[in-house]
Amino acid sequence: MVNHFLTIADYSSEKLHELLYQAIELKKLYKDGGRDLCAAGKTIAIFFEKPSCRTRVSFETLANQLGAATIYLKPEDVGSLGQREPIKDLMRVMNGMVDMFVGRVFKHSDLVELAKWATIPVVNALCDKYHPCQGMADIMTAYEHLGDLKGKKLTYIGDGNNVSASLAWACFKFGMTFCVARPDGYDMPAELYQQLKSQGATDENIIVTTDPKASVENADVIYTDTWVSMGQEEEKAKRIKDFQGYQVNMDLVKLANDNVKVMHCLPAYRDLEITDEVIESPYSVIFDEAENRLHFQRMLVKDLLQR
Amino acid sequence: MVNHFLTIADYSSEKLHELLYQAIELKKLYKDGGRDLCAAGKTIAIFFEKPSCRTRVSFETLANQLGAATIYLKPEDVGSLGQREPIKDLMRVMNGMVDMFVGRVFKHSDLVELAKWATIPVVNALCDKYHPCQGMADIMTAYEHLGDLKGKKLTYIGDGNNVSASLAWACFKFGMTFCVARPDGYDMPAELYQQLKSQGATDENIIVTTDPKASVENADVIYTDTWVSMGQEEEKAKRIKDFQGYQVNMDLVKLANDNVKVMHCLPAYRDLEITDEVIESPYSVIFDEAENRLHFQRMLVKDLLQR
Amino acid sequence: MVNHFLTIADYSSEKLHELLYQAIELKKLYKDGGRDLCAAGKTIAIFFEKPSCRTRVSFETLANQLGAATIYLKPEDVGSLGQREPIKDLMRVMNGMVDMFVGRVFKHSDLVELAKWATIPVVNALCDKYHPCQGMADIMTAYEHLGDLKGKKLTYIGDGNNVSASLAWACFKFGMTFCVARPDGYDMPAELYQQLKSQGATDENIIVTTDPKASVENADVIYTDTWVSMGQEEEKAKRIKDFQGYQVNMDLVKLANDNVKVMHCLPAYRDLEITDEVIESPYSVIFDEAENRLHFQRMLVKDLLQR
Repeated sequence: MVNHFLTIADYSSEKLHELLYQAIELKKLYKDGGRDLCAAGKTIAIFFEKPSCRTRVSFETLANQLGAATIYLKPEDVGSLGQREPIKDLMRVMNGMVDMFVGRVFKHSDLVELAKWATIPVVNALCDKYHPCQGMADIMTAYEHLGDLKGKKLTYIGDGNNVSASLAWACFKFGMTFCVARPDGYDMPAELYQQLKSQGATDENIIVTTDPKASVENADVIYTDTWVSMGQEEEKAKRIKDFQGYQVNMDLVKLANDNVKVMHCLPAYRDLEITDEVIESPYSVIFDEAENRLHFQRMLVKDLLQR
Repeated sequence: MVNHFLTIADYSSEKLHELLYQAIELKKLYKDGGRDLCAAGKTIAIFFEKPSCRTRVSFETLANQLGAATIYLKPEDVGSLGQREPIKDLMRVMNGMVDMFVGRVFKHSDLVELAKWATIPVVNALCDKYHPCQGMADIMTAYEHLGDLKGKKLTYIGDGNNVSASLAWACFKFGMTFCVARPDGYDMPAELYQQLKSQGATDENIIVTTDPKASVENADVIYTDTWVSMGQEEEKAKRIKDFQGYQVNMDLVKLANDNVKVMHCLPAYRDLEITDEVIESPYSVIFDEAENRLHFQRMLVKDLLQR
Repeated sequence: MVNHFLTIADYSSEKLHELLYQAIELKKLYKDGGRDLCAAGKTIAIFFEKPSCRTRVSFETLANQLGAATIYLKPEDVGSLGQREPIKDLMRVMNGMVDMFVGRVFKHSDLVELAKWATIPVVNALCDKYHPCQGMADIMTAYEHLGDLKGKKLTYIGDGNNVSASLAWACFKFGMTFCVARPDGYDMPAELYQQLKSQGATDENIIVTTDPKASVENADVIYTDTWVSMGQEEEKAKRIKDFQGYQVNMDLVKLANDNVKVMHCLPAYRDLEITDEVIESPYSVIFDEAENRLHFQRMLVKDLLQR
C-alpha cells in the first residue's frame, strides 16, 4: 500500500507522536552538522497551484538535505489540475518519473484523486480544507517550548480556515484542548467537528466561542492567522470589520498563562490579526515555528519514502 | 567535434540501435535500484519557449539520477531566442557556464543556430519540425512490447506534425513500415518525404492515406496525437471538423493486429483523437511510453556527455 | 559576525586580492576536472526581482559545482520585497531554512535591510546602485589578460549605472585608473565619488570626461554597457540620441593601447553602444568575462560559507 499525507485525521495518534519524536531527533542531527542521505538520487515533484514562500523553501531545502532533488511545477508549466488532462493521466505520468508528489492545491478532492492513482506518496502542502504540514510543525514547536502537550490548551483566534482545521486535528491527536474564537459566520465546517467527534473528541476538547478574551484564559498557546487568505481579497474590507476585537495584541496575550507562546503561520499582517509588538515579544515563537516546517516535513518525507 | 541531438535523421541506424539497447540496460539498472553517476557535478540548462510537463519532468529527473543539476529557463527569465541578444551570444555564455543545453523551442532553425555556436551538446526537446526524444521513446516502448521491430508496421493517425515527423524517421531507421492516415491538408511537409527517400525510404516503407480503417490493417502499433497543438487554438473548431473519422476508438483498434499496441505522446484529449476506453484498455502502452521519455533521454544525455 | 557581499567598497583591497587569486586557483581546479564540494548539502536561495540570464545561470551552476542546491525565487512566488510581509520576516524565515541569500533587487536599501536581519550571508547579485559580482568578474578577466593591474587604465564609456559604480570601486581597490566618458546628465552619483575619495581616491585615479576619444588614450581596457537598462525603456529614444558618439567601434578601439581589451557585461545591443565587429574582434574578451561571473562568484560563495 502506498502511503500519503493528506490530512492529520488519517494518521493515528501513535504514528503522529512517533513522527514528532523522530523529527526532533533528525533536527538535532542536522543542527549538529550531520546529514541523513536517505533520499539520495530521489526526485520530488512539487506542484503549486498557489504560490508560497515557506512551503516551497522548506520542501526544496529538506529534499536537498536528504540527498533528493525537487522539480517545482506551476499551472503555467504543466496545466492546472484536471484542466489540460485528467488528474489520472498526470498522476500516472508522475508515477513513472518521480518518487514523491507534493501538492499545494485549491481543492482537497484533487489531492484525493491524485492519491487514488498514485503509486508514489502524495503530500498535502495546503489545500482548501487542510494544512497538515503546518499543523504538525505547530505541534512540534509547541512541544519544544512547552514539553508534554497532553492537557495543554491551544487557542486559535481568527478565521476558521484550512490552518485551523489541521490545528484542531493536531491538538486532538496530541491530547490538547483546542479552543477557537471567531465571529459568527467564520466557523470551520460542521463536517469537521462531526469527524473529530467520530474519532472521540468531546465538547471539552473542542471549544468554540465568540469571546476572544475568555478564549485565552489558561491558554498555553495563542495562535492566529491572516483574516484574508489568498483568493479572498475582495472580501477584505468586510472581513477586517467582522474581525474587529479578534486581534492578538499584548492586552490579550496578558490574559493567558504567563508562559503562553504565540504562534502564526505567516505571512503576518501587522495591526490586523496581530501586532508587531506581540510578534517581536518574548512570547512569540513564530520564527521557530516557520523553521519547524523544514524539520517536521524532512522527517515526514523520510518516513514516506522509506515505507 | 561536439555532438548534438537535433533530429533522428542525423543519426545512423546503428547508433540509434546502440542507444536503444543501452537505454534498456540503463533502465534495468535503475529499476533494480542501481545508479550511474556519470554526470556528477554537471549542469544542464533546460530552455523552454513552450511549457511542458513530460519533457520537463523527465529531463530534470534523469539529470538528478545521473548526478547532474538542471537550470530551468523560460523566455521571461532570459529572453526569447534571438530577441534580447543574438543566439550566438546566448550560446557562447552557455558554453562557459553549463555542460549541456536542452531546448524546447518554436523554430528548428534556432536550434541549428545554437548548435552552430555550441561547444557543449544541444538537445532538441521539441521544435516546430521534430520531436526526436519522443520518437525514440516511442521506438523503445514498441521494442519492449513487440520485440524486434524490423518489418513491423506503425500507423500514425492524425495531424502531420513534429511528433509524426520524428516517428517517421524513427520507423525508417528501425526498419518499420510507417503508415500515416490524415485528412487532405494535414500532411507532413513534402520536404520530409524527400529527405526520407534520399536516405533510402521507399513507397513501401512510407504509406500515406486518407483512410483510417485501411491504415490500421496489420498494424502493430497505432499512434495518435492531439489534433490541436499548442498555438493552434484558434483553428480548433475547423480542425475537429476536418479530423472527423480519424478518432482512435475500439472499433478502429479491432481492425488492427490482435496484439496491436496503442500509443499517444500525451496530453490526450478524450473523445477527440482517442477515447477513454482505448486509453484504459490493455491495448494501451501510453504510460509506459511516457515513462520511456525518462529512460531513453537518460541514456541519450549520458551518451552525449561522454563523447 | 555574519559576512555579506553587498558592495566592493565594504571589502579591503587585501581581501579582494585574496579572493581574486583564490578564484583563479579554483577556476584552474575546475578546468582540470577537479571539484571542491565545500558546500555539500547547503541550500542557497536566489531571489530575483529582475530576471537575468548570466547571473542566474552562474549562481545555479556554481552552487551545483560546490555541492549545493539553489532555490530560484521570484516576486510572483514569494511576494516582492517588503510588500507581502516585512523584509525582517522574510529574512528570519530564510535564516531558519537556507544557508545563503542571493538577491537581485531593485533597491540597495532592501539588501541592507535583509543583511541587518540575516544570520546567513547575503550577496548582492545586482541592485540599483551596484553590481559587485560583475565588477569582480571584470577585474578577474582583466587580470588574466593583462597581468598585474596596478597602474593600468580602464575606460568605461556609457551610462553611469550600477555596473560602472562597481567597476569604479573595483578599479580603485586594484590600483587602476578609472576613466569614465559619458554625456552630461549620465554621470554616476556625486555620493559615489565622495565615498571613493573618502577611501583615498584622487582626481588621477578617477577621471570623468565627455570626450570618448580622449578617454581611451592609453586605455588597457575599454568597457561599455547598454545605454538603456531594464526599466528605462521609455527613455530609449532620448538615451540613444544623447549617447551618439559614445559607441565603442573599431575607430575608437584603435585609439587605445594596441593590446587593449574590450569588455561588456552583456546583453550587448549591436550598433548602439558597441558594434558587432568589435565584439567579434580579437580585442574582445567579453565571453571570458561572462564565464568569469561563474568563476569569481564560485570563490565568493565558498568564502562566505566558510567564514
